[in-house]
Amino acid sequence: MDTRTSPARARLAALRDVMQRERVAAVLVPSSDPHLSEYLPGHWQGREWFSGFTGSMGTLVVGAERAALFADSRYWVQAEAELTGSGIELVKIATGASSEHIDWLAREVPRGQTVAVDGAVIGLAQAAALRAALDAAGVALRTDADLLAAAWPERPALPSAPVYEHAAPQAAVSRADKLSQVRAAMAARGASHHLVSTVDDLAWIFNLRGADVNFNPVFLAHALIGAQEATLFVGAGKVDAALAARLAADGVRIADYAQARAALAALPAGAVLLVDPKRVTLALREAVPAAVRVVEAINPSTLAKSRKTAAEAAFVREAMAHDGAAMCRFYAWFEQALGRETVTELTIDERLTAERAKQPGYVSPSFNTIAGFAANGAMPHYRATAESHAVICTPGGVAANTLLLIDSGAQYAGGTTDITRVWPIGSPSDEMKRDYTLVLKGTIALSRARFPLATPGPMLDALARAPLWAEKLEFGHGTGHGVGYFLNVHEGPQTISKSVVTPEMAMQPGMITSVEPGLYRPGRWGVRIENLVLNVPAGEAGFGEFLEFETLTLCPIDTRCIDLALLRDDERAWLNAYHATVRERLAPLVSGDALAWLEARTQPI
Amino acid sequence: MDTRTSPARARLAALRDVMQRERVAAVLVPSSDPHLSEYLPGHWQGREWFSGFTGSMGTLVVGAERAALFADSRYWVQAEAELTGSGIELVKIATGASSEHIDWLAREVPRGQTVAVDGAVIGLAQAAALRAALDAAGVALRTDADLLAAAWPERPALPSAPVYEHAAPQAAVSRADKLSQVRAAMAARGASHHLVSTVDDLAWIFNLRGADVNFNPVFLAHALIGAQEATLFVGAGKVDAALAARLAADGVRIADYAQARAALAALPAGAVLLVDPKRVTLALREAVPAAVRVVEAINPSTLAKSRKTAAEAAFVREAMAHDGAAMCRFYAWFEQALGRETVTELTIDERLTAERAKQPGYVSPSFNTIAGFAANGAMPHYRATAESHAVICTPGGVAANTLLLIDSGAQYAGGTTDITRVWPIGSPSDEMKRDYTLVLKGTIALSRARFPLATPGPMLDALARAPLWAEKLEFGHGTGHGVGYFLNVHEGPQTISKSVVTPEMAMQPGMITSVEPGLYRPGRWGVRIENLVLNVPAGEAGFGEFLEFETLTLCPIDTRCIDLALLRDDERAWLNAYHATVRERLAPLVSGDALAWLEARTQPI
Repeated sequence: MDTRTSPARARLAALRDVMQRERVAAVLVPSSDPHLSEYLPGHWQGREWFSGFTGSMGTLVVGAERAALFADSRYWVQAEAELTGSGIELVKIATGASSEHIDWLAREVPRGQTVAVDGAVIGLAQAAALRAALDAAGVALRTDADLLAAAWPERPALPSAPVYEHAAPQAAVSRADKLSQVRAAMAARGASHHLVSTVDDLAWIFNLRGADVNFNPVFLAHALIGAQEATLFVGAGKVDAALAARLAADGVRIADYAQARAALAALPAGAVLLVDPKRVTLALREAVPAAVRVVEAINPSTLAKSRKTAAEAAFVREAMAHDGAAMCRFYAWFEQALGRETVTELTIDERLTAERAKQPGYVSPSFNTIAGFAANGAMPHYRATAESHAVICTPGGVAANTLLLIDSGAQYAGGTTDITRVWPIGSPSDEMKRDYTLVLKGTIALSRARFPLATPGPMLDALARAPLWAEKLEFGHGTGHGVGYFLNVHEGPQTISKSVVTPEMAMQPGMITSVEPGLYRPGRWGVRIENLVLNVPAGEAGFGEFLEFETLTLCPIDTRCIDLALLRDDERAWLNAYHATVRERLAPLVSGDALAWLEARTQPI
Repeated sequence: MDTRTSPARARLAALRDVMQRERVAAVLVPSSDPHLSEYLPGHWQGREWFSGFTGSMGTLVVGAERAALFADSRYWVQAEAELTGSGIELVKIATGASSEHIDWLAREVPRGQTVAVDGAVIGLAQAAALRAALDAAGVALRTDADLLAAAWPERPALPSAPVYEHAAPQAAVSRADKLSQVRAAMAARGASHHLVSTVDDLAWIFNLRGADVNFNPVFLAHALIGAQEATLFVGAGKVDAALAARLAADGVRIADYAQARAALAALPAGAVLLVDPKRVTLALREAVPAAVRVVEAINPSTLAKSRKTAAEAAFVREAMAHDGAAMCRFYAWFEQALGRETVTELTIDERLTAERAKQPGYVSPSFNTIAGFAANGAMPHYRATAESHAVICTPGGVAANTLLLIDSGAQYAGGTTDITRVWPIGSPSDEMKRDYTLVLKGTIALSRARFPLATPGPMLDALARAPLWAEKLEFGHGTGHGVGYFLNVHEGPQTISKSVVTPEMAMQPGMITSVEPGLYRPGRWGVRIENLVLNVPAGEAGFGEFLEFETLTLCPIDTRCIDLALLRDDERAWLNAYHATVRERLAPLVSGDALAWLEARTQPI
């Protein structure tokens, strides 16, 4: 029996005191905030505070006696370690979309008692599923209070980073034009008003950016858009007077962040409100008066911003070239340093970020750099820390004959990047080369695919997996995610994965998606080769319009790791053509060692 | 203005008289029966009777003034012709699963009035969607009557073909074992009873077959299965005394077909009834007393029968060899007859069916033979008739340099076949050969796929389409459908198509599915190359169990239509290996001209 205790034990006791006072039998603590974002400000990281589990996804349920944390396979090892001594059970679930925590509550909470969840941080669809299950079990659901507050005196304040304008020319469509687009979509659905809570939608509609969360250049807000004017609910002091004046010129009023519910409650009878049930919380939905008709549909901005305009695509190509130039400088240094200086996984992050920071338009990394050496590369969500990281080489030589996986990206005013490359360290084995080549075949197969306009992204997933499947190999993550324009690095609605298809996943011109098959040998090595691709029209031949991918990412794909016997001629031709493009586009941006490196690494095979 | 009239006009008038008498504003006439079958007995072909439209799918709605028929693109030409003079509007819908007829009713029927549909022929899910839309429009729904009856004195009687036993050895699992399997699944869901209405499920569970509809060897019935005994509700006189005695020995009682509702109504309080909401009608569901708890899940037999046992698979291989031998004899004759005698599309059906009828275990065709010459091949659901069919050749020569598409199949006691081949007539053009080769590449790509156990079938669809997509070509039907074992030729739950994925579509060992990409040039020619494939275990390599396809269909794929420049070496190798297997398996079953033909048509390329 493990007798260590964790700070979570005392924190849970405090929460249970509040529960007892409020006569609540169990509390549900999801990993979410009032904007249903992927990255949460500390203020809403209650699941981490009360459980000690630091993973980015997971659901905590706390009953009077028992407590459980639900996490998927990416987090099992980490969660087991972090939950030690907390008294919280780990429940292993298949995917983050599982509803097993609901079953747990329905089973554990006695009939007639009450479960609480903060309605301000739970989505409509999730709330409906929870309510249905608890109703069936004779358990009440309370959603009007945030019970964490009273048990969490150390709770971080709301973030207060200033909001700034995403300016022309990179903001290629004006705020007024975007508001017109949104209003046209509202009118088409007969809506007089539209509530927006998702921070990427708000950033896009208003051409504003912020720094309230890591990596995604967004700010916390809600907006209520009417036919003539709009109100942006945002923390006091975050929008300065000059910006407020420019917003006012476009008919956008600033109000306090906390006033969104009151504004909804004050909607006139006869108003018709458009809300996206996947992108609005229960608390806001319930603030809407009964006399207001609610029309449910995907946020018009979610679809619109996924389709980058020609001007935006041109800026993304520019950002990709600068990002590629930074990669060249980094890798040129890295290959020279290999075996001559001490290089760790942390050094890689520092050096790579420093090179990117020199590029025009650079704002920040777009996510935590994943530099995974050898076995660390087999953990798709690995992150090196000061306490725990691998040494890749010392002046005495390299630490092993293996692979190094680097997944990194940046925010530029003209676009968001995300790239994964795998580099040989010493002499990789034949088995490593085989894995590398099979993954590369998947990247190539999907990158060169053509497909009918509006094909759901998930239908394309098998194209990247087929070369791995042929050898009975598989990887556990999606093949591709949508990417924003100087916005979230994970931003749909399209996806290339095993997801259940929804209509908004239809591929449309201008969408940017990652192509990133992988292969992971736990305890040994990992491979992932990732580019971003743009949906571009491919014309038609009497069977409807087709799309194809333009590969946007510009950086050599290592050819020394390839087992040439496994590559077909047509695959080799694709890679050589890609490298010719990379060389042509990046050569003007680099010089010296970096140029020599670029030329060496883009030689045809 | 077209002044022709159609018999439908008078029939609709009779129906409207009944509607007026019953104070019903509109009647919905779906293409379905109490068993939600694909093929309908004449008794339930009311949609055809009242509209004149003879297509296999379509929905008729009849209001007081207006009437509309909803059909998908396969039927537009046919429906326009057949509806002429009927006064019924054709509404063109995207797919058969569209719900536009519901919108039509909600829009056309005035608030406060009533829509009628026979609850005995509408599925639960469809009824729920209809009820929700009509509720929202303030329109009442009546489901307790079959209004067609009073307006349709010529209505065909219920079919009365005798029920017979599917006997060992082809019935490789005994009725008692199958009932045990079903009961184990019931117990796992806590159900004391299980209602089955789908005719393929009934045929499988009870090892019985019939001839109540064309092509599918099924009989109309319902069954109520308890923990110890079962009742089969079937038309009087269809089960003879000897068979009834054998059924009784397995605890199966015979009751009249019309008594199923009464039996449900008589279920004891506390009973727990398992029903499949996609496979039971509203009328039967509503007969269940409130004191009976209903558990909804897919019919256990639907899953079980999709997974053919090793013994069943062995019989299917045997049936495929006999079917292939019949194809050899047919094609050997056909190639000799080409340009020497008169051959029409009808001759093909006659000759091919005659060859199959000589094979051991032959029962019937498994669907209407599609023999499509030149432009007729471009209609995926084409059927030649005595009034309208193409002449392929006369003693003077062939009618054109083109392609001939033949899609055919049979029911054998040991399996169900379904095969499509395309044959050159005269000298096909380069464009025809290119189309043929691209479709063949799709057939090959999917046939050789490996994939993880439980991969949803729809995920594999893109593998067959990718070679066509690369050339901006597409086809409008699914790539593959499940196939029964001496049962329905379209029988899921798995599918390889653009369907929305449901959990039961997971690929499992023993499932048989078609692989049939195609390409259709309207007015010119059509290509489709179809084999049936069996899911077989492919082992594992540390990433979970994998499946692969064993191609079951045995018949040469014409190599003269191939544009060799478009075929990769690995594709050519697949085809040569397939032909070597076909030759080895069929040679012992044919002789003379047919053997010579087999050897010529399986030469390596």
